[in-house]
Amino acid sequence: MKLYDMRLAPNPRRVRMFLAEKNLDIPKVEVSVVEGENLKPDFRNINYRGLLPTLELDDGTCLDESVAICRYIEELQPEPNLLGRDALEKARIESWQRHMEFDGFWPLADFFRNTFPAFAERAVPGLAEKFQAIPELAERGRRRYEIFLDGFNHRLKDNEFVAGDRFTIADITAFVAADWGRRMKLPIPERHSHSSRWYAAVSRRPSAGA
Amino acid sequence: MKLYDMRLAPNPRRVRMFLAEKNLDIPKVEVSVVEGENLKPDFRNINYRGLLPTLELDDGTCLDESVAICRYIEELQPEPNLLGRDALEKARIESWQRHMEFDGFWPLADFFRNTFPAFAERAVPGLAEKFQAIPELAERGRRRYEIFLDGFNHRLKDNEFVAGDRFTIADITAFVAADWGRRMKLPIPERHSHSSRWYAAVSRRPSAGA
Repeated sequence: MKLYDMRLAPNPRRVRMFLAEKNLDIPKVEVSVVEGENLKPDFRNINYRGLLPTLELDDGTCLDESVAICRYIEELQPEPNLLGRDALEKARIESWQRHMEFDGFWPLADFFRNTFPAFAERAVPGLAEKFQAIPELAERGRRRYEIFLDGFNHRLKDNEFVAGDRFTIADITAFVAADWGRRMKLPIPERHSHSSRWYAAVSRRPSAGA
Repeated sequence: MKLYDMRLAPNPRRVRMFLAEKNLDIPKVEVSVVEGENLKPDFRNINYRGLLPTLELDDGTCLDESVAICRYIEELQPEPNLLGRDALEKARIESWQRHMEFDGFWPLADFFRNTFPAFAERAVPGLAEKFQAIPELAERGRRRYEIFLDGFNHRLKDNEFVAGDRFTIADITAFVAADWGRRMKLPIPERHSHSSRWYAAVSRRPSAGA
């Protein structure tokens, strides 16, 4: 297996953290989205959607979508469990993962792709056609992320981790988002004591360096 | 179990179709998003995110997020299988499900929520705070959906169904999106012979009426 990766991009980091939690290390191939390498024919032949991360299996089969790649890894190496053990736990973790993704991660992505100068004319990931940045969408993303952070702090008041009492994929999605937000000067506010406690704890895990 | 549902909304329909494919029928409670019932305290007590569908279990546990609800149902009743059997098939189906969702369903949602007059000041689902519609985002959503449909037709040239040779959750996501698009005068174009063949075939399934 090898992972088409981009060191600075948040979606590939979700998979890198997942691999690190499983204590797995696989070869990585760096692809620069900022330079548009993901839109060139060489990479389109690997993943026609032009998206990272992409996992290539030894037989040449390619898988994209961070959560789908994580599920494949979980199936190959079930421990430590990150996606749930029984019906209810699997569903609850998936629900929290999606909550973190849709209410935290994607609003930040809206902010980033519609603000960062390199993407002024390619505001939609993976598409070669020009899409102009929409400043109102950047502002909407920023405000949605603020609202998300308030609820996130509340969630962590009575729960050690996002989905309950143990670390799961939902924490990975939330942590990668929170770190990305921090780089964009949208950190978890200090007054949010519960999510700050969680952020410090996850930062100390070896996988946080992945 | 009971499902908090809205007859005309696309996300609840994904779960209804999934249940119908499993030959399951559970009680449903209609909640009107257009009337804002999902934002009122009664429903916030069930799901504080204010989102449909939400599944309530017999012990009062509530689950949201359509795909998480589908996973719970699949775990309870594995046949007919809609989420995959082995590691690679599970991952591949999840990847295609997400592809249909992020490149087809969400761009349509951007078009809808930023166009439909009832949502002119609540363009973000589930949030009580006012978010004004963004016309440029509606147009971006429409164009992204057109691009998606081109790739979708190509995908179905050599595949009977979205994820390969059998019906899965990826077809449900794509079919609900395609029907929603049709209602918004963005149908699968007649010249797209492969996706039109697929659309006609899925329309004939009993679950299409769910």
